[in-house]
Amino acid sequence: MTTLYIAPGACSLGTQVVVRELQLPIDIVKVPLRQADSPIHRINPLGRVPALQLDNGTVITENTAILPYLADLKPEAGLIPAAGTVERALVQSWLGFGSAEIHAGAFRIVNRGGSWVSDEGAQQELKDFGKSQLRKSFTHVNNALQNNTWITGDNFTIADAYLGVFVRWLAKFGNEFDDLQQLRRFRDAYEARPSVIAALEFESAKG
Amino acid sequence: MTTLYIAPGACSLGTQVVVRELQLPIDIVKVPLRQADSPIHRINPLGRVPALQLDNGTVITENTAILPYLADLKPEAGLIPAAGTVERALVQSWLGFGSAEIHAGAFRIVNRGGSWVSDEGAQQELKDFGKSQLRKSFTHVNNALQNNTWITGDNFTIADAYLGVFVRWLAKFGNEFDDLQQLRRFRDAYEARPSVIAALEFESAKG
Ligand SMILES: N[C@@H](CCC(=O)N[C@@H](CS)C(=O)NCC(=O)O)C(=O)O
Ligand SMILES: N[C@@H](CCC(=O)N[C@@H](CS)C(=O)NCC(=O)O)C(=O)O
Repeated sequence: MTTLYIAPGACSLGTQVVVRELQLPIDIVKVPLRQADSPIHRINPLGRVPALQLDNGTVITENTAILPYLADLKPEAGLIPAAGTVERALVQSWLGFGSAEIHAGAFRIVNRGGSWVSDEGAQQELKDFGKSQLRKSFTHVNNALQNNTWITGDNFTIADAYLGVFVRWLAKFGNEFDDLQQLRRFRDAYEARPSVIAALEFESAKG
Repeated sequence: MTTLYIAPGACSLGTQVVVRELQLPIDIVKVPLRQADSPIHRINPLGRVPALQLDNGTVITENTAILPYLADLKPEAGLIPAAGTVERALVQSWLGFGSAEIHAGAFRIVNRGGSWVSDEGAQQELKDFGKSQLRKSFTHVNNALQNNTWITGDNFTIADAYLGVFVRWLAKFGNEFDDLQQLRRFRDAYEARPSVIAALEFESAKG
């Protein structure tokens, strides 16, 4: 059976949401992160989630690859437009923006930057820099949501399943990003989806 | 006419290489980066390359989206496997790894980290941290190249067109990464391709 490895609170939430949206016969397994004895190291040598292990043992990593792979298993559900279309390129662009600019280029600096330098002032500067990158990136997202329910239009796609994860992560900054008003509306619509409710319940369940 | 915006020395090289591999009727335009009056700001509000502007004005950004879009224009050339296949997911995974982990998560810290903090010691620590991330990421690439000519097998794909850019960027560290021997072989094969030769010539030409 195909298995999706995830961790509670991690960026793998979007992939789990898509498995649930499509009701795919995929086993979802929780693993701990940043622990030498976590089973994730035997699956993904980089020790990261999400990781999708297929029946034949092949492992696919990277949100930007797993999400379109899952969506293409049931194209009729409309979570991803057909290959060769501009619409698909725009969905893939938001995935790339999320992974490179929002996650690696902003959140990771805010969350991990403090361990990259020893000077306390520099740690604070890194946090501030990461936050300024968050503001730039989420302003771009907020602008795109000005005229649409979802990020590329009226239909929920894998780009929304993924961006919803990062919009939720903003909650840890209290009301600091509340001026980006479309994000709040987007988050409410995201969290109202049965797939998201079920995914969050699964993440917080014991075991 | 469709226009691809690039900058000499930038990560947009891979997209230019793909336009040339496929001999697509796309205008390639060089723009300066990090200049308030650069035309790129009218095309991409984030001021970044690559950016692909279609006939109807739609702009596609992110390497991880532009590269598959271009390749899907001529699927018979084999630069990208068909949608729905595991092979395509693996190509897309290397694109994602390149953009999030090699570019944003490693090179950008080495190249720009110095401007994020004011303490000189911290600047050095950031450079060292970025380099350790480069080593992790390129060890992963080197391992994948152990048994193949190109990153996913014997055929050159958009993943190679893109990763070649970052392997070339390693040259600025002298022989520091020479122990990753597959990278040297990969780079030689990359730079021998007529598309890459033409793309580099175009980048360095005046005007
Ligand atoms: N570029 C990867 C990033 C994956 C990633 O960083 N996942 C985090 C969780 S949000 C992780 O597993 N971190 C554990 C670690 O880095 O050791 C992707 O988009 O899939
Ligand atoms: N995530 C983007 C990154 C693009 C990017 O950072 N491009 C650089 C050139 S290598 C750029 O245009 N930098 C100018 C700037 O950030 O102002 C992608 O993969 O396309």
